[in-house]
Amino acid sequence: MTPPDQPSTWLDVPADHPFGIHTLPYGVFSTGADPARRVGVRIGDLVLDAGAVAAIGRDAGLVGDGPDLATAWLTPSLNAFLALGRPAWTVARQWLTEVLTDEVHRDGVSPHLHPLADVVLHLPVEVADYVDFYASEHHASNVGKIFRPDNAALPPNWKHLPIGYHGRSGTVVVSGTDVVRPTGQRKAPSDPAPVFGPSTRLDIEAELGYVVGGSTGLGSRVSVDEAGDHLFGVVILNDWSARDIQAWEYVPLGPFLGKSFATSVSAWVTPLDALSEARTALPGQTDPQILPYLQGDAFGLDIHLEVTLNGTVVSRPEHAAMYWSPAQMLAHLTVNGASIRNGDLFASGTISGPTRESRGSLLELTWNATEPLTLDDGTTRGFLEDGDTVTMTAWAPGPDGARIGVAEVTGTIIPAR
Amino acid sequence: MTPPDQPSTWLDVPADHPFGIHTLPYGVFSTGADPARRVGVRIGDLVLDAGAVAAIGRDAGLVGDGPDLATAWLTPSLNAFLALGRPAWTVARQWLTEVLTDEVHRDGVSPHLHPLADVVLHLPVEVADYVDFYASEHHASNVGKIFRPDNAALPPNWKHLPIGYHGRSGTVVVSGTDVVRPTGQRKAPSDPAPVFGPSTRLDIEAELGYVVGGSTGLGSRVSVDEAGDHLFGVVILNDWSARDIQAWEYVPLGPFLGKSFATSVSAWVTPLDALSEARTALPGQTDPQILPYLQGDAFGLDIHLEVTLNGTVVSRPEHAAMYWSPAQMLAHLTVNGASIRNGDLFASGTISGPTRESRGSLLELTWNATEPLTLDDGTTRGFLEDGDTVTMTAWAPGPDGARIGVAEVTGTIIPAR
Repeated sequence: MTPPDQPSTWLDVPADHPFGIHTLPYGVFSTGADPARRVGVRIGDLVLDAGAVAAIGRDAGLVGDGPDLATAWLTPSLNAFLALGRPAWTVARQWLTEVLTDEVHRDGVSPHLHPLADVVLHLPVEVADYVDFYASEHHASNVGKIFRPDNAALPPNWKHLPIGYHGRSGTVVVSGTDVVRPTGQRKAPSDPAPVFGPSTRLDIEAELGYVVGGSTGLGSRVSVDEAGDHLFGVVILNDWSARDIQAWEYVPLGPFLGKSFATSVSAWVTPLDALSEARTALPGQTDPQILPYLQGDAFGLDIHLEVTLNGTVVSRPEHAAMYWSPAQMLAHLTVNGASIRNGDLFASGTISGPTRESRGSLLELTWNATEPLTLDDGTTRGFLEDGDTVTMTAWAPGPDGARIGVAEVTGTIIPAR
Repeated sequence: MTPPDQPSTWLDVPADHPFGIHTLPYGVFSTGADPARRVGVRIGDLVLDAGAVAAIGRDAGLVGDGPDLATAWLTPSLNAFLALGRPAWTVARQWLTEVLTDEVHRDGVSPHLHPLADVVLHLPVEVADYVDFYASEHHASNVGKIFRPDNAALPPNWKHLPIGYHGRSGTVVVSGTDVVRPTGQRKAPSDPAPVFGPSTRLDIEAELGYVVGGSTGLGSRVSVDEAGDHLFGVVILNDWSARDIQAWEYVPLGPFLGKSFATSVSAWVTPLDALSEARTALPGQTDPQILPYLQGDAFGLDIHLEVTLNGTVVSRPEHAAMYWSPAQMLAHLTVNGASIRNGDLFASGTISGPTRESRGSLLELTWNATEPLTLDDGTTRGFLEDGDTVTMTAWAPGPDGARIGVAEVTGTIIPAR
């Protein structure tokens, strides 16, 4: 049902496939025959060896003054491509669309398509700095009510600035990586002294991660209106959290070991260019009025997440309900002159909506384990048990009713060592 | 006065020079004639092009089964050398000591020595993850008294675990880098709404940074006793802090923009192997008893710092007074299974002693600007003014009364943009 002005791929991809011609996410893959990690582009259930195809064009002298995509893509992460910046990202997407829609390219391209099931997917980005925000009003309110019931649900700064903190970039792992249950100190109010052992309150946080490209210099800022030049794309991010470790350690300097053991991201980065139909207004930031540096074209993104635990859907968080937008987060992150680097990753914080069904953490879904969830197999959960598998998927509206996929992130808990 | 069993260099270095034969710190340098960044070793006021000399030995077939130091050192950061691990670090130090003490090497080595004044020094480490701790009891108590006067000076967890948080590795800069005064939100209790503008309470924090090598896998731990295998060396670190921005933003997730605009480190990394005489007992961790995973050979380091502001000595912090040791910090950092990478950097937190003269921040030295400092030029300071230059130096005891230098970190405040 694609109208004439919309591209249609010569590949056999169903029109309702979330990774059709309108998505074209980037990842890093290898194959048994060629274990070198390089950039791939997903189309349907195939992976295009993007660098190999770009090299054919380059070697035929077809690149002209354009960016050298082959060189950028024949590397083991997206970082070199991220460094080329927004103009190159646009050229690359146009070129990928052309080779996957114009029949003339079929014979040249086909040998460079690999079945998704046959490739190994790797961490798509060498993460430079990782920052996690706290941008869902519903999430922040729920956490406040659970942990600080005697105070206002939101801290006084919450509606003035997007609260964030740095996380551990070295433990950002690709979807499918097992997560070892973390060990550490915890102390319930009733404990006379801290107890050491495996976390007993292991949780998930359903988030989007925003991948950054186009580095800036120290002392400069990225405004809200400029943020689109640096926002390359989105991943789904599961910010695994040990609530008991976190609760004991986090005053006064914030979360540390309760979060740093693993942060899972999807293997595919859906470009911001694929999400133009998903741009949406923010829910409103007028009470209080926000400061000018946070104003501008601060678009929201209408992205629908789904969280399953051992196959049971436990939540459907809505990114459109977020109070702060990624453009505002980036403007805030840099307002003090902090530079950004290619491969920086920042995340939304847990995405929770107003209903129980849209809460993005078990902490909120089970109200700190006081209202356990019942799974389809009849078992109940307050927090995660060893062997549990959590999978998150997401999609956004695309042109003509198409769905733009944001690829899954999944992980299984294995026992503490 | 060097006894016969101590090495003596054939170079003309005064016996009391803090960068004599017992120190041999590593850095990264370039020269006008050769702008390629590579590893250098400081001896007196000269810089040895370590990779160039190692390459001579390698090309002459003298390396044998040893580590290929030339390849590791002819790179633009210490990270490749850090990846070789403790055995290679020991071999490298023995080899450097030999070529700088045995006269037979004089003719071969001399052409590869550059006057310190003629080289450009660069950031020595490509920082992977940066963590800042809070390990001085005096500092934490002072901060508690200033900011939370109605509560206990130390939070309840403080003596059970070394509190830490992740900082921004992308804004770690080398000594000599100007620091742009950061801009952001602040809100005094008396302000009805947050105010936006340049920080008016810009501060320093005198710290040591510990450089990590020998990466580990996700899910594994580094014990206190194993920490020495991963602690490569120390730098001086100035954790510039905008107290007004920090005070408004840090609840509940910790410091963010108040710290992330710049963190300065010295250009030279003094190896842990040079600090064996500086090992000292910790001040005592028996009330409360600490958990077993924080026990072991958790040596302290007797390192003396000096902080000058526009040439006036304003503080002499003592690292030996720290409650938690670097080995304990690394054991804590990894107890949840967090992996470490070559180039990880963690810092002590502000080093403050029991006396006013040994406090490591202006916040403490001026008691939040209520007791201003008077500089030698007669001006007074609560916090930093534009144009102020802060320089920190440090030394530790070495063999036979020698001083082991930890090279300076300096930076000048330039006006907000």
